[in-house]
Amino acid sequence: MRFFSDNAAPAHPRVLEAIAAANRLDTAYDGDDWSRRLDGAFSDLFGTEVRAFWVTTGTAANCLALAALCPPYRAILCHKDSHIEVDEAGAPGFFTGGAKLILLDGDGAKITLHAVAAACEAIRNDVHQVQPAAISITNATEYGLVYRATEVARLGEFAKERGLALHMDGARIANALATTGETLADVTWRAGVEAMSFGFVKNGGLNAECLVLFRTELADEIAVRRKRAGHLLSKGRYLAAQILAMLEDDLWLDNARAANAGARKVAAAAHDRLVYPVEANEIFLRVTDEEGERLRAQGFDFYEWGPDQIRLVTSWDQQGEALDRLASAIAALG
Amino acid sequence: MRFFSDNAAPAHPRVLEAIAAANRLDTAYDGDDWSRRLDGAFSDLFGTEVRAFWVTTGTAANCLALAALCPPYRAILCHKDSHIEVDEAGAPGFFTGGAKLILLDGDGAKITLHAVAAACEAIRNDVHQVQPAAISITNATEYGLVYRATEVARLGEFAKERGLALHMDGARIANALATTGETLADVTWRAGVEAMSFGFVKNGGLNAECLVLFRTELADEIAVRRKRAGHLLSKGRYLAAQILAMLEDDLWLDNARAANAGARKVAAAAHDRLVYPVEANEIFLRVTDEEGERLRAQGFDFYEWGPDQIRLVTSWDQQGEALDRLASAIAALG
Amino acid sequence: MRFFSDNAAPAHPRVLEAIAAANRLDTAYDGDDWSRRLDGAFSDLFGTEVRAFWVTTGTAANCLALAALCPPYRAILCHKDSHIEVDEAGAPGFFTGGAKLILLDGDGAKITLHAVAAACEAIRNDVHQVQPAAISITNATEYGLVYRATEVARLGEFAKERGLALHMDGARIANALATTGETLADVTWRAGVEAMSFGFVKNGGLNAECLVLFRTELADEIAVRRKRAGHLLSKGRYLAAQILAMLEDDLWLDNARAANAGARKVAAAAHDRLVYPVEANEIFLRVTDEEGERLRAQGFDFYEWGPDQIRLVTSWDQQGEALDRLASAIAALG
Amino acid sequence: MRFFSDNAAPAHPRVLEAIAAANRLDTAYDGDDWSRRLDGAFSDLFGTEVRAFWVTTGTAANCLALAALCPPYRAILCHKDSHIEVDEAGAPGFFTGGAKLILLDGDGAKITLHAVAAACEAIRNDVHQVQPAAISITNATEYGLVYRATEVARLGEFAKERGLALHMDGARIANALATTGETLADVTWRAGVEAMSFGFVKNGGLNAECLVLFRTELADEIAVRRKRAGHLLSKGRYLAAQILAMLEDDLWLDNARAANAGARKVAAAAHDRLVYPVEANEIFLRVTDEEGERLRAQGFDFYEWGPDQIRLVTSWDQQGEALDRLASAIAALG
Repeated sequence: MRFFSDNAAPAHPRVLEAIAAANRLDTAYDGDDWSRRLDGAFSDLFGTEVRAFWVTTGTAANCLALAALCPPYRAILCHKDSHIEVDEAGAPGFFTGGAKLILLDGDGAKITLHAVAAACEAIRNDVHQVQPAAISITNATEYGLVYRATEVARLGEFAKERGLALHMDGARIANALATTGETLADVTWRAGVEAMSFGFVKNGGLNAECLVLFRTELADEIAVRRKRAGHLLSKGRYLAAQILAMLEDDLWLDNARAANAGARKVAAAAHDRLVYPVEANEIFLRVTDEEGERLRAQGFDFYEWGPDQIRLVTSWDQQGEALDRLASAIAALG
Repeated sequence: MRFFSDNAAPAHPRVLEAIAAANRLDTAYDGDDWSRRLDGAFSDLFGTEVRAFWVTTGTAANCLALAALCPPYRAILCHKDSHIEVDEAGAPGFFTGGAKLILLDGDGAKITLHAVAAACEAIRNDVHQVQPAAISITNATEYGLVYRATEVARLGEFAKERGLALHMDGARIANALATTGETLADVTWRAGVEAMSFGFVKNGGLNAECLVLFRTELADEIAVRRKRAGHLLSKGRYLAAQILAMLEDDLWLDNARAANAGARKVAAAAHDRLVYPVEANEIFLRVTDEEGERLRAQGFDFYEWGPDQIRLVTSWDQQGEALDRLASAIAALG
Repeated sequence: MRFFSDNAAPAHPRVLEAIAAANRLDTAYDGDDWSRRLDGAFSDLFGTEVRAFWVTTGTAANCLALAALCPPYRAILCHKDSHIEVDEAGAPGFFTGGAKLILLDGDGAKITLHAVAAACEAIRNDVHQVQPAAISITNATEYGLVYRATEVARLGEFAKERGLALHMDGARIANALATTGETLADVTWRAGVEAMSFGFVKNGGLNAECLVLFRTELADEIAVRRKRAGHLLSKGRYLAAQILAMLEDDLWLDNARAANAGARKVAAAAHDRLVYPVEANEIFLRVTDEEGERLRAQGFDFYEWGPDQIRLVTSWDQQGEALDRLASAIAALG
Repeated sequence: MRFFSDNAAPAHPRVLEAIAAANRLDTAYDGDDWSRRLDGAFSDLFGTEVRAFWVTTGTAANCLALAALCPPYRAILCHKDSHIEVDEAGAPGFFTGGAKLILLDGDGAKITLHAVAAACEAIRNDVHQVQPAAISITNATEYGLVYRATEVARLGEFAKERGLALHMDGARIANALATTGETLADVTWRAGVEAMSFGFVKNGGLNAECLVLFRTELADEIAVRRKRAGHLLSKGRYLAAQILAMLEDDLWLDNARAANAGARKVAAAAHDRLVYPVEANEIFLRVTDEEGERLRAQGFDFYEWGPDQIRLVTSWDQQGEALDRLASAIAALG
């Protein structure tokens, strides 16, 4: 039973059906019927005019946005454990042409206004030091914590005052909102977010993610950068169709709720083993090597996160028995 | 009836079936069962040990390879009408970190040994001028002409003598081989090609292309560059499965034969309107504006290539009636 | 007698004196008294508010400006024989982060409005093709021809209409103006030039060149880019002092007049051997290998430009006898 | 009395004389008599075959070397307070094409084997995380501490085992050796250093620094990168001549000894105000705002390093009275 990563899960049947339905002659690139509906669909979803660009990875979505928000000679403030710093092979440096990531501390991979402000204060305003251009946050974070709209808004206000852009890595934005019940609008553009990646693949998608752009005047630049990075697929309709299927009847939210429910079930069994509160679909547990072995022996697969620490991730499709057995096995560790 | 681009065609049913069959839990990125079979499948296909990397665009396949073959401070010799120069939004500059394309003339977008040698001669061997590092050819070319193995080998020998790498853009390599009947081995690594993009999407694929690497010692670098460029999809199995389906029972070759047959049928009707011999699935015709209008009026869609010139592209799925009607319509132009 | 390059000439004594005079304690980088006078000195010289940045090479001056005028994903239109294309080792690609040079033909390395317009027309306005962002011209050109203010203005108007920036490589701007008698203002900002390199080293300087910026809102970006490229010297006063010495009493113009006078003397002896009219300090002659040998045998050094073609360059310090002897030797070739 | 920075000091008279002596006709770029003597001079100095490249800034020397030692997709391990991280405006990212700096802690800006090893251990060996390619150390450090040869050798051994390159920022290498009395050879190539910047400007030079390359097979690449970055001056002889003057009769070492002696004199008066031991020509003192004001009121200029901390730097030319007065003033603070 795999709790290694939500990337391992299959795609939702409605996503596959959408791909099959898109399998007919249409215009290449993003001129097709499906792709042309994306801007409207996301504008409706967010309650404001946005531009939406399909891509195939969160890395591409994040870094295309960051490249448009931060020139090569400036910096992006982010958490030291953020995906863009730790797990994208230096992609921000590649896409931006050498911009710097300034790394911040913060519990559970959340950054606070205090940490951001302190980092800005520490930079002399001269040509010798790299000046910040953007803040990037991840919601839900790499440790499964969630930013509330008010938290984002505080960062957004600071960003605005300082002339910084605000970016959100929303690889698990669905899981975040499934927990808070807040609206997409409140936690993004109303809070000052200018561009975000909207994750679908971890949440039942097949291979389509979305870059959502609130600062729409950057759309032409993003479109060119996408092409230039080899991310303008020639048959884009198969990506757009997936995304539209995920949006239809709020499948994205239903899937996230299912994954989160699984995580809560496991968390409930974990008691004081929890390293962080479980606010999305990731569970970090204190588990000794020996205990970890016992879990593996029962067929559970997961990620060794650090010394005596494991990460489990639940998926949209994991319900019922497997989760019950996992919860029992964890409870049985004592 | 759309003869605008082979990118507009649907995916082959067996490709869709393969995606559906891959829709189950497996390891993320390229650790899954399908992805792990790619190296072997392509090594068998080429008759030598190769490394194969799925990506989602020909631009990514071409430019990841070129970045590994050409340092930022050197140049790639290519045809002035090549896709990497004309239609990839400057992606070679982005992926290589600023390497230069040196543009060559040549009939039908083919480059000759003579043109390559002359370009090399014209470069002073000092630090002021950008020294070449690689040659890139496209087979079949952007005008539908085909390099034979002996032609590639001549370029390959020159490249070897001068310490240049040889790259092939094989977006339509299937169409080329369907015409010549030569083997993949003969027209690629035996002729000196070190890396190539192997196109599937124009030929019945959905969104998987392949970078085939003959200089296998560059594999680790390519793998890192792919990730860093946002091209390591988290559910790679859906790409690998498509490619394996295309290779099975030589579907890739059957599809190309079908597309080529359609092009030959049209060409036969075009007589002296042909701008280039039709060796693959592209037909360039001399057609006046007025004649073009007549064709459009009958429901045919195509690309205005230049003054009094149009491009038609046939696809794997275009057979029978539509082609007959097109051939008749062209013949009827007189 | 060296007529190889004006780079080979010594520095003017007043430049050396200025360096010696600057050899005292002052603030580092560009905070010193000399550096702080540059903006004012050039603003006076040009008759408008400019920002002036010392650097040590024309390549740096050109490419820092181009990087601020052209984003990585767009292109610069320039002559195929321009210095930025032929003799800067791909520096524009490095500084801009991969922008493309689109190469134009034109007699004597001058580009015409017609050539620029035709190149722009040939670019489809879509994301697949690299869109132009700037035009770069060299005055005097690599073949010693001069743009008049009206010629620049025609290009400047076109640039403005199309939203393109206009850059001038002024490595030999002094030689150009020494010939035309036009004003700096007329041939630069009044004609639409937004940034230029102003050459001093070929004209009696030691190692200081200047980037003059007319679009002053880019000054902060240029300042950062200069530092980031390692071009902010820690003792900048020695560069600023050189430049101020060159400006004082129009030494830059006197030196250029002297060099041009030498070139005219040689040209007068060359009759129909001249490949181009001599409008600055470069002379291109049709000379057979055998004739070239005869000149070398008499102690003259020069550049083999191509088959049966040589380039001679005169310097600010070459007067009197050496030039007379060169002129005689050329006349004696018959 | 300026103790702000050694960059503020004038150039040594022998350096100016050397420039004047070089003020005659010679070949452009680095083909002149002075430039051609550099390799030999530094090979003699280091007791092994090296390649030496003049440049005009330490940033250029450091970053050209790092670009040759670290590909764009890998990382450089360095101290979090190192010059390349803090004071070069992101130049490493620019020159390398986006490589990452991994920041290490360590007293007095020195990095320890332990810190380097721990950082390496923390990186998963997969394509998602940026793998290290080089270690960069500064000697003397930004806080005026000195690496002994044995310390460098320990890092060098580790680097060799792990396949990492070792780079030294030697902006103040002269000050380091003036203190330790060790040889250049022992503290550099014998200890595993592959490339270094050798600082002259802070030590009595005018505007010439040197990149010394021990891994000589990278020389051609460095030469091209130097040109491409606009750092190949057209009259290089004025740089080479400065450097040769600094090497003659060990002027570089004499100057450093003088500067260090000044620093020791100040340190002796500072007692327990010293933040770090004074091993080179930088003095960091604990001084309250009020005390700082008192020093300024007496005409001393220095750098506010942080809360209640100041930095003073002594220069090669500061002897006698000014230093005595500074020492007295500090002692008088109590």
